Amino acid sequence: MGAGFGGLRVARALRRAPVQVILLDRNNYHLFQPLLYQVATAGLEPEQIAKPVRSILRGQKNFDFRMVEVTAVDLVQRRLETNAGPIAYDFLVLAPGGETNFFGLETVAKHGLGLKDIPDAVAIRNHVLTCFEQAMLEADPEQRRARLTFIVVGGGPTGVEMAGALSELIRLVLVKDYPRLNIKDVRILLLEATDRLLAAMPERLREAAGKTLWRKYVEVRFGATVADYDGIRIRLKSGEIIPAHTVIWAAGARATGLNDRLGLATARQGRIAVEPTLQVAGHPEVYVIGDAAYRETNGVPLPMVAPVAIQMAETVARNIVRTLRGRPLREFRYRDQGTLATIGRNAAVAHVFGLQLSGFPAWVMWLVVHIIQLIGFRNKLFVLLNWAWDYFFYERAARLITRD
Amino acid sequence: MGAGFGGLRVARALRRAPVQVILLDRNNYHLFQPLLYQVATAGLEPEQIAKPVRSILRGQKNFDFRMVEVTAVDLVQRRLETNAGPIAYDFLVLAPGGETNFFGLETVAKHGLGLKDIPDAVAIRNHVLTCFEQAMLEADPEQRRARLTFIVVGGGPTGVEMAGALSELIRLVLVKDYPRLNIKDVRILLLEATDRLLAAMPERLREAAGKTLWRKYVEVRFGATVADYDGIRIRLKSGEIIPAHTVIWAAGARATGLNDRLGLATARQGRIAVEPTLQVAGHPEVYVIGDAAYRETNGVPLPMVAPVAIQMAETVARNIVRTLRGRPLREFRYRDQGTLATIGRNAAVAHVFGLQLSGFPAWVMWLVVHIIQLIGFRNKLFVLLNWAWDYFFYERAARLITRD
Repeated sequence: MGAGFGGLRVARALRRAPVQVILLDRNNYHLFQPLLYQVATAGLEPEQIAKPVRSILRGQKNFDFRMVEVTAVDLVQRRLETNAGPIAYDFLVLAPGGETNFFGLETVAKHGLGLKDIPDAVAIRNHVLTCFEQAMLEADPEQRRARLTFIVVGGGPTGVEMAGALSELIRLVLVKDYPRLNIKDVRILLLEATDRLLAAMPERLREAAGKTLWRKYVEVRFGATVADYDGIRIRLKSGEIIPAHTVIWAAGARATGLNDRLGLATARQGRIAVEPTLQVAGHPEVYVIGDAAYRETNGVPLPMVAPVAIQMAETVARNIVRTLRGRPLREFRYRDQGTLATIGRNAAVAHVFGLQLSGFPAWVMWLVVHIIQLIGFRNKLFVLLNWAWDYFFYERAARLITRD
Repeated sequence: MGAGFGGLRVARALRRAPVQVILLDRNNYHLFQPLLYQVATAGLEPEQIAKPVRSILRGQKNFDFRMVEVTAVDLVQRRLETNAGPIAYDFLVLAPGGETNFFGLETVAKHGLGLKDIPDAVAIRNHVLTCFEQAMLEADPEQRRARLTFIVVGGGPTGVEMAGALSELIRLVLVKDYPRLNIKDVRILLLEATDRLLAAMPERLREAAGKTLWRKYVEVRFGATVADYDGIRIRLKSGEIIPAHTVIWAAGARATGLNDRLGLATARQGRIAVEPTLQVAGHPEVYVIGDAAYRETNGVPLPMVAPVAIQMAETVARNIVRTLRGRPLREFRYRDQGTLATIGRNAAVAHVFGLQLSGFPAWVMWLVVHIIQLIGFRNKLFVLLNWAWDYFFYERAARLITRD
């Protein structure tokens, strides 16, 4: 299954159903991915945006969790293969989630930094802070500038949030740590292959986002496609070469590699095409939800975001109960609740309920929405305290370079 | 130098001296080691007991930090060799700290878990929680019990605190996460080679500690010396074999390996014997402090604890200033402020200012002392909040199994 937004919601929604729910995940925690970029920029600690699955679903009698890695699915025998032996099922809800999509750019996959789970985020944090430490030891000015050039690839919400947060980490916090640092040596570039940021947003908000990034000294480059990266120099398709020790890849997601091994037809981004009821064709007992599932609305593929996974989970839970009761199944219909992206202090863009907000009101809305959605009162409290502290004192608590 | 208790205190104490202070450490943070066992038992997050060196000493004008690893010291040329090139010095204060001492037991060093820095503590947390997840998947009862047998070696303060905290993590928190767990399958053993726990404490307190551990279902074994460990079975010198997937080694510390490479005479535990002024014989410009330095009081070696390092640091800072002013140097004299060890909720033993406290009063004193000593108001606040939450709700926030 998977303990992401989708898998967790299915398990919860089936709490009163006459079924035994077994949730599988290779990690023992649920991760609140929308705030992962704040772990990468030292604003939050990993423990504050993750919660052990067992403690989330502690009270649920028909629930069991197993920390295993699913290696294959035997659709005929109705059996999952895992690293701890096989598990039989009557219904199967696949919610394995997504991973970073490097679009076959092997050198970028090797030297670039993705942002999909906690180790990714901690790796970015360690890398960025190490670049500053190494820049302080570097005598050659060109080498030093290369270590202080940070490239974020992808102008979607993740890329925009990452670039904004990185700029604030450096310009509001790290400048105080490195009094000998010449801030003009620091560059943050946001590379976008098309001609617009936040493509899903209306034009007014796209422009607001661009302006805010500009005010934060983030250089936005449109029509910039990455061709190659060796860890020290990035080469664009135009032939331009930029020396940079850091490339953060936020340019794409795809379904996890598990999808490719299932023997089911995959559509774009490695996602499995599902029926309107979210069942797999020919296997009515198997559902796919979240990033791993492929559905379109009005000819456009559904985005790989938490609200889609959550709404799909609710449909699937209902359909499983309806199957048990012999009732006809419901079709999935996505209700778009809007998009939010934050760019930094007092700055965000929001397109929700037909409203277009930017600046401080959008930022407050972003804040409230994310605090509400965080699972567990303790996480809410600690994240809020962290944010308040950072807001008033221009600080970041988690500036540790941790090693293995 | 080193950014532990000693190195940091020297740097701070020299803030008004006519010198340029350069602090070197391979990590960018100062770690509050006395609370490390709470990270290992999921009570605190690593970020809460560590603070970046640069932010601690931010205001100090004559201070510079370099994140480098010292590889050798050239005492004749007065130069440090590091992984980022050589650094010349006029005065050198060596405060490289200690590491786990496995006393040459190679199999234990390989399969056992030490507790000296953040990666160690996170490794213990991950390992203990993984043992529970694996035990849930284990059909064979003997195998399951082996996965749920936790052995702590060493009856000093670290071992006692670790065993107590581990017992509370399991019996107060994890039992709620694993409703199918039979608590009788869980064993915690504390192995001590001599016939007493907390040897430095008076008898009354030693007995109180033993009783408290007994009430927490920790089996204390005296006269138990470890001979061999293969990751699954531990063998004692008596020939007894105990199946256990977890061995936490808190039985000894020694100075870091750097000491052996300096070409200076080392005394017990790899520590460098220093003059009463803490100088190295024949090199009056070189001082050694903390775990790396060897001094005796009344024929007993000074313990490898924070108060010794801090007091030594103050003596050294004063002696450096006196040297610059041409005044005679002061000799180091250790003022023992007492010992504190906590065993769990409302339970601790304290021997301070000639007072012998145990139970709740000792526990409150332990709490106050540790909160006061934590560096930074933010760390104090978050640790206190965490403790309060865990105290009232019988919880542990950081129950994540993180992977690389």
